[in-house]
Amino acid sequence: MGFRYEMRLSGSGGQGLILMSIILAEAIGVHDGKFVCQTQSYGPQAWGGSSKAEVIVSDVEIDYPKVMNLDLLLAMNQKSCDAYYRDLKQGGTLIVDSTFVHQIPTPHAFSIPFTRIARKKFKQDMVANIVALGALTQLTSIVSRKSIEDAVLIRVPKGTEKLNMDALRAGITSAKKAKKDRMLMEIVPDISDEDLRDAY
Amino acid sequence: MGFRYEMRLSGSGGQGLILMSIILAEAIGVHDGKFVCQTQSYGPQAWGGSSKAEVIVSDVEIDYPKVMNLDLLLAMNQKSCDAYYRDLKQGGTLIVDSTFVHQIPTPHAFSIPFTRIARKKFKQDMVANIVALGALTQLTSIVSRKSIEDAVLIRVPKGTEKLNMDALRAGITSAKKAKKDRMLMEIVPDISDEDLRDAY
Repeated sequence: MGFRYEMRLSGSGGQGLILMSIILAEAIGVHDGKFVCQTQSYGPQAWGGSSKAEVIVSDVEIDYPKVMNLDLLLAMNQKSCDAYYRDLKQGGTLIVDSTFVHQIPTPHAFSIPFTRIARKKFKQDMVANIVALGALTQLTSIVSRKSIEDAVLIRVPKGTEKLNMDALRAGITSAKKAKKDRMLMEIVPDISDEDLRDAY
Repeated sequence: MGFRYEMRLSGSGGQGLILMSIILAEAIGVHDGKFVCQTQSYGPQAWGGSSKAEVIVSDVEIDYPKVMNLDLLLAMNQKSCDAYYRDLKQGGTLIVDSTFVHQIPTPHAFSIPFTRIARKKFKQDMVANIVALGALTQLTSIVSRKSIEDAVLIRVPKGTEKLNMDALRAGITSAKKAKKDRMLMEIVPDISDEDLRDAY
């Protein structure tokens, strides 16, 4: 089997995760020319008002469009973080909206307040999904920045193009910061108390 | 295996098939409480500007979210009708937008001018997908009318609710007419020339 990359975007209904996943899939499949399959499931088992969408990328045609080995999980609320973290593979990427996710199961997560950014910078919770999309673009190399911009412009409602471009860029900036913070944090825990004692 | 119903909605990019499939999947999964999986694939193999979305309904959780035995094909242009008709199972339902599909591979198709209806009644090609959704609702028993109305209202852009409700109803009406036309047409071919001779 060749290259395969599996992503799950999860949160509450109304957080725009399905639109986000469609933009992501179109950016990768149509604009970047890889094979992409985008899926969402609904059913009686779904807990009230929650939403989950998956995007699978491959360099060959996708025969099995379900998650087998989750590479990336975006959790926009606590419930979905709790429910899906166990599906994330060892070393997989966890991105959480720290506006709503307070108990983060691993210190290696990227914790970014997407909804707070949307609210504060754009006075609209609604664009939190596009902020998150910008962050995801910056934190992975799964999609090019040009492709994601093109795909956003095609899919968002007419008249909201500038707002959404700004939201995307805010997400990219927030991810750069989160990446730096995590790097710093990961250097620090390497220095144990023992190390510190030894240093003197 | 229990009940499983597989639908493919196909046409040109820009005809709104992905939105249509999401509304359909949400109506069935969220509102009618069945298991539903909604998928679209993108890839280098896709012919220019075409679009395809699938909705699979089941009474058990869906393990294999790809089409195995297509029950219903909606073709909104000639290219997709030509490409996908072969996947439709024997006795499956074919619905075509007769605005663009002129060569129909079977006399048993439901042939309705969705785009012409959208253009003539609403001055907007754009709502052809919602007209088609109304027709699909009327021609199958896969989704309740109440659920599809609720799902349309949730997903369409704010301010376009009335337009889309009217488009949905136009689709329902057009399907009733197409059903009647097909019934009449199917009675007539049963009377062969021989029958006619015998009648005298």
